[in-house]
Amino acid sequence: MSKTLTTTPREDGYRMPAEWEPHVGAWMLWPERSDNWRNGALPAQRAFAKVAEAINRGEPVTVCVSPGQYVLAREKLASEIRLVEMSSNDSWIRDCGPTFVVNDAGEVRGIDWQFNAWGGLLGGLYFPWDQDDLVGEKVIEMERVERYAPDIILEGGSIDVDGEGTLIATEECLLNSNRNPEKTKEEIERYLKDYLNLETIIWLEKGVYGDETDGHTDNFCRFVAPGKVILTWTEDRDDPQYDISEAAFERLQEARDAKGRALEVHRIRQPDPVLITAEEAAGVDRFPGTLPRRKGDRLAASYVNFYIGNGVVVMPSFDDPQDVVAQDEIRQIFPDREVIAVPGREILLGGGNIHCITQQEPLGRRSAQIRGSGVTQLAS
Amino acid sequence: MSKTLTTTPREDGYRMPAEWEPHVGAWMLWPERSDNWRNGALPAQRAFAKVAEAINRGEPVTVCVSPGQYVLAREKLASEIRLVEMSSNDSWIRDCGPTFVVNDAGEVRGIDWQFNAWGGLLGGLYFPWDQDDLVGEKVIEMERVERYAPDIILEGGSIDVDGEGTLIATEECLLNSNRNPEKTKEEIERYLKDYLNLETIIWLEKGVYGDETDGHTDNFCRFVAPGKVILTWTEDRDDPQYDISEAAFERLQEARDAKGRALEVHRIRQPDPVLITAEEAAGVDRFPGTLPRRKGDRLAASYVNFYIGNGVVVMPSFDDPQDVVAQDEIRQIFPDREVIAVPGREILLGGGNIHCITQQEPLGRRSAQIRGSGVTQLAS
Repeated sequence: MSKTLTTTPREDGYRMPAEWEPHVGAWMLWPERSDNWRNGALPAQRAFAKVAEAINRGEPVTVCVSPGQYVLAREKLASEIRLVEMSSNDSWIRDCGPTFVVNDAGEVRGIDWQFNAWGGLLGGLYFPWDQDDLVGEKVIEMERVERYAPDIILEGGSIDVDGEGTLIATEECLLNSNRNPEKTKEEIERYLKDYLNLETIIWLEKGVYGDETDGHTDNFCRFVAPGKVILTWTEDRDDPQYDISEAAFERLQEARDAKGRALEVHRIRQPDPVLITAEEAAGVDRFPGTLPRRKGDRLAASYVNFYIGNGVVVMPSFDDPQDVVAQDEIRQIFPDREVIAVPGREILLGGGNIHCITQQEPLGRRSAQIRGSGVTQLAS
Repeated sequence: MSKTLTTTPREDGYRMPAEWEPHVGAWMLWPERSDNWRNGALPAQRAFAKVAEAINRGEPVTVCVSPGQYVLAREKLASEIRLVEMSSNDSWIRDCGPTFVVNDAGEVRGIDWQFNAWGGLLGGLYFPWDQDDLVGEKVIEMERVERYAPDIILEGGSIDVDGEGTLIATEECLLNSNRNPEKTKEEIERYLKDYLNLETIIWLEKGVYGDETDGHTDNFCRFVAPGKVILTWTEDRDDPQYDISEAAFERLQEARDAKGRALEVHRIRQPDPVLITAEEAAGVDRFPGTLPRRKGDRLAASYVNFYIGNGVVVMPSFDDPQDVVAQDEIRQIFPDREVIAVPGREILLGGGNIHCITQQEPLGRRSAQIRGSGVTQLAS
């Protein structure tokens, strides 16, 4: 087993890099559950395969798949995509997967957070979540890196960092009584600072309206460069999103990052509300304990839910006139990367989007002592 | 997916190394099926864990385990053992796993043979074997090496090489009509020579008496050095093994290896016949299509079924007076390695022994192009 450390990354000189720093690759989980994904998950699988291909233009992608789907997934994924067997309860590796940290020597370690399906028995999205909770450990072990295992429930999508000591999170999620009710805000901040090596936490109140993750910041407000954030936005004062984004904008304007910088806030207009159609709702199996997908329910559509990969930004499109505007803006924000839009509706129907279904692994120096042979294996 | 090559290792300058050449690590599969392993496989799991620990003294061991056993296996394996999820039908990675080949530059590739559970519907040992047949592909993909996929059924335990162009196999297995009935002996030789890069094949007639693999050579006769083989033996003329070993000895004495050398044949006396007890038989579930384990059946006990690892030889013991004699002989044959005896009865009850449940991966230089980042990942 990967060695489990009882120290913290902060003590050991490790930090979570920003997503725009170089990656060794990306991880994804294959969708299959018919009580969350319509039509036996086939439309979602096609969307996931497109996301994998887009990211794979810049870095190797590994898709983890349950035993029963292995051969089927192999047929549906581009041949360059690496496939490994790994069970999960659903396919949100951003949230149930590990967070990788690096030190100045480029060594990589993994944080294996606890996971309770976005709220456990108090508003969690399905039951059980035992296989999801093993994903972090399994990925870390496959990568032969050392492991931190903090006793805190945390999803990767609920946090966003600039790689220079600053984190953004929402109170709606991290301080929700369905995550870590026994911990105070100060204790949660201590975990974040110790495990991600931070100086400053910028708290926003809420995330995207209707987001079933309890307002993950990765769908709402994210760093795009040191000192610069992107925030989902609407100009429709009657939209419940208006006040949420407005309040966040105010806090962001007052905030200073770990380096003392004021933040440049780029507001990006959301698409028109995306509602589940009758046909879409009818394609999802009902299952006790799983959040139902009902006709007319509004989905938390946001352009902010993109993946920043080596040489690419992979962002969702919604068949909305705003799509091309958002793509132009992202292109201006990331002038050195190819911006690839992938239709995100089928992913969104499952409760998240491109960032939620991906997890980057930073480039670094991995070492595995080959015992007894006197040989050290290094990959840089 | 790992790139699948349509050339052969011989054309590409790759060969199968001898087992005593340096390894990057060893692979195993976790036993669990109650219709082959007694008492819910718990005694076998303890034996497998001991084998893993012994090999791990010299090289990293990865144990592949099905989803349902993951957490249980983690508890039973030493913490240094790496555990990855991988389904299988049983636990004989020597036979269903890949054969790795290397070139002079130290690059590694994998051969993904076809597998039919030692005979398919004509005397195979269980049904189905679909997950076993995926093990080679999955290991190769996990290792990010390129893949050969010859259309021939072949088990790793049915062959043994000296790494210098010579292979030993038995006619009982490789020419059995339940393996590749559509192929002639000459065609099978061509596959072996092309994929393992050989000049000379030494055919023995049969393997160990009663071996349900149809006489795998890895339980009977193996190279221990260039020009030197070990052969299981008995002095009891009434034992059906006597004539088999005698006939093999004659062929070995006549044989010349790829370098033109005569072979030094080291005969190692087998333990007394090992019979399944009533208690052992009663501990195994009966299941249609799976070879039953009956009281009084003789098991194919052999000291030859050892694993040659970095710095170690891990061999079975049978609670037999011959154990210490065999261990002394193996020590003399491998003076530079630690010889570790692990009780092999619980493994043997499942139909094989230490060599059958292990698969070495040779040390070499692995390269995986990180696309788009201009970075090449190398491990040496």
